[in-house]
Amino acid sequence: MEQEHTRPADIERNSMNILTAEMEQRGLAVPEEYAPVVKRVIHATADFDYAENLVFTDHAVEMAVRYFQKPGSVILTDTNMARAGISRPALEKLQGQVDCFMALPEIAEKARAEGITRAAASVDYGTALYEDAAFAVGNAPTALLRLAEHIQNGYRPALVIGVPVGFVNVVEAKEQMLSLCRSLNIPAVLAMGRKGGSNVAAAVCNALLYTAAEMLDPADRGWN
Amino acid sequence: MEQEHTRPADIERNSMNILTAEMEQRGLAVPEEYAPVVKRVIHATADFDYAENLVFTDHAVEMAVRYFQKPGSVILTDTNMARAGISRPALEKLQGQVDCFMALPEIAEKARAEGITRAAASVDYGTALYEDAAFAVGNAPTALLRLAEHIQNGYRPALVIGVPVGFVNVVEAKEQMLSLCRSLNIPAVLAMGRKGGSNVAAAVCNALLYTAAEMLDPADRGWN
Repeated sequence: MEQEHTRPADIERNSMNILTAEMEQRGLAVPEEYAPVVKRVIHATADFDYAENLVFTDHAVEMAVRYFQKPGSVILTDTNMARAGISRPALEKLQGQVDCFMALPEIAEKARAEGITRAAASVDYGTALYEDAAFAVGNAPTALLRLAEHIQNGYRPALVIGVPVGFVNVVEAKEQMLSLCRSLNIPAVLAMGRKGGSNVAAAVCNALLYTAAEMLDPADRGWN
Repeated sequence: MEQEHTRPADIERNSMNILTAEMEQRGLAVPEEYAPVVKRVIHATADFDYAENLVFTDHAVEMAVRYFQKPGSVILTDTNMARAGISRPALEKLQGQVDCFMALPEIAEKARAEGITRAAASVDYGTALYEDAAFAVGNAPTALLRLAEHIQNGYRPALVIGVPVGFVNVVEAKEQMLSLCRSLNIPAVLAMGRKGGSNVAAAVCNALLYTAAEMLDPADRGWN
């Protein structure tokens, strides 16, 4: 096997070149501001649908990057899977952190007591704990719906990454969040339609973190 | 919101009904033996391509289920993300375990010293540690290629879940593994083509674990 196939940074650079060329061939034009996010999601899924599914509120990337460049930024995910996929080196460089409350016993208890999902209970917990966290929802539409309620009650997340996946309530939850974030000028990245997932949530976070930390070239991430 | 939208077990049951109906509409017939795996992957991705991409070696599901029903089964993943996505309740019920070596300092060191990827170094580590683990590869084709080398040298994994995603070496690595597993009668589930991911690896594992643990109905998983 050639050397370029065994060095992770080279593999990623090759992959990005291939998918960029293929996006052009397919006529999938993406504004430069969004390209790092869109390409990283396609890189994570090999699914070019995301070139059309991903929507951004005005200046979402710029506002997200500015948020992550301030030390003390917080990403809250709705799965431990997404949490595990978010780049530790980038968070360390930016002095940010990621957390997920889904497995806490008090979340299970709260969910049972209130007849809500653990994902919704986690959103309650996160909005109480942090004044302006970034919420990354890759799985549960109920998390997105609950976050929308908090926003309607005055909460202002620093960023909404809304990419839950599925067949029940997912499309509607994303549409509601998009119009809410647009009307209130809250930065949001959403995968419209049914598609998404924890891997997509992590990819969106990483693209934004790498941009904020100036680690877009894979060699800058130290595992070359 | 209706009650059925807030209870996770009901959401999952509804989702499975919707996607089953839609598979029929699309003419995507899947043999009954494979249906739980295929449906769980579509549930995790909302991507019906997997009804055609996923291939199984003969009796793969039956052999995998038998392996997981023996106490002491081991799943080794190539990402901590896939590890985080695999059902703890199912593993506990089956007395199985999951591990991922990617973040161990000795893996980074071995990879540097030998000029291989951490994913390949993890496969070396796993094959040395376990006589017959299940390998779940959702990210790195180099892990699959390395595992193929070990198989050619006589190693026999209990199961190969080969669903790496990407644009470089991914298609070839899966094709090589498929013919290898077919010729040696090693149970394997592979997502042919470029698509896959840690979420897909976790979904395949969970479908097999839930079948083995008789937890296919979501209410049996205790988080209803």
